[in-house]
Amino acid sequence: MLRYARPLQRLLNALERLPGIGPKNAQRLAFHLLRVDDAEVQELAGALHDLKASIRPCTQCFNYSEGEHCPICADPRRDATVVCVVEEASDVMALERSGEYHGLYHVLGGRLSPISGVGHDEISLDALLERLRNGEVREVILATSPTVEGDATALEIARLIENLTRTGELSATPKLTRIALGLPVGGDLDYADGLTLARALRGRTLVGDS
Amino acid sequence: MLRYARPLQRLLNALERLPGIGPKNAQRLAFHLLRVDDAEVQELAGALHDLKASIRPCTQCFNYSEGEHCPICADPRRDATVVCVVEEASDVMALERSGEYHGLYHVLGGRLSPISGVGHDEISLDALLERLRNGEVREVILATSPTVEGDATALEIARLIENLTRTGELSATPKLTRIALGLPVGGDLDYADGLTLARALRGRTLVGDS
Repeated sequence: MLRYARPLQRLLNALERLPGIGPKNAQRLAFHLLRVDDAEVQELAGALHDLKASIRPCTQCFNYSEGEHCPICADPRRDATVVCVVEEASDVMALERSGEYHGLYHVLGGRLSPISGVGHDEISLDALLERLRNGEVREVILATSPTVEGDATALEIARLIENLTRTGELSATPKLTRIALGLPVGGDLDYADGLTLARALRGRTLVGDS
Repeated sequence: MLRYARPLQRLLNALERLPGIGPKNAQRLAFHLLRVDDAEVQELAGALHDLKASIRPCTQCFNYSEGEHCPICADPRRDATVVCVVEEASDVMALERSGEYHGLYHVLGGRLSPISGVGHDEISLDALLERLRNGEVREVILATSPTVEGDATALEIARLIENLTRTGELSATPKLTRIALGLPVGGDLDYADGLTLARALRGRTLVGDS
């Protein structure tokens, strides 16, 4: 039986498809939107409408960007000699929330996972190595998630960078560090709070030292 | 400092204005939307865009409606001899979730509140009385919220209906009932779960009996 007016039901269906939004929550949001100014609803509609068309990957770090470079890569105050390697763009935002980090990022777009068919070519490993070849990078912080696959990805990146150093393709050898296990093991980086992330960044260790 | 690409920041700002959506939640939703199919995002954008333009009050009960009558008033299987009076359209949905009620509704659009300047003319009291005058209504369930103002509104409606009966304006005297206090007193009807609402409906009492 149809219990809601159709335009309302359509909105409820669309809202319920979002993560963490159940039927009751969707209804609360929908009724809120029916009450507020239409301008506010149109702003949300417009932001959604334009989202995908106007967002593309940063050509340097693969973070979400409007122009060629994301706001972080484009910011001259950021320390370009440090690159923090993360799995997803959402991890960049999690680390930014910690307020502890002032270098640049590199978004892999996933982590190595033979089981899921994610190999070297599915994530932006080559682009990372290219960045190191061209660059002034003195430290690479490996901030992939503290899971089996995240750890394996970090180790593989360390191996690839050591290879580059051995073959003399890097002008200087960057320091390789791994984000500290202040994070709950097996957890998702994006869920961690800023304080925990700040501690994990401060406690980072040299790869090979632990 | 700008940390997000502008279109993303715009969406985050719009999402954070919604009730119960904090910065972290907004970010989770935004990143989800960046990952999913554009069709899904456009559907949500479209639903929002069309919402206000295509929704209007039902001419009979003032519930949200697409056409002249809301889906409940238009449903011939609903019992038109029972009218449940509620404060808001969201209360209709809360009662519908209980699955216990098969009559019609009347949405007041608020409750009497001298302090907030809500008097008889600010809510759809006259329309309710007009419905009773024209109609075949045998029971009016007063389901305003169990708060001081909600109770006062229910009592005032009871008084008005008794007046109509006394002056002979009603062909038959409808039974007047009040939704039972299975609801937590002072609570908001919209927050109650279906079971509690079902119990409150089953335990409804005749006005004047308690």
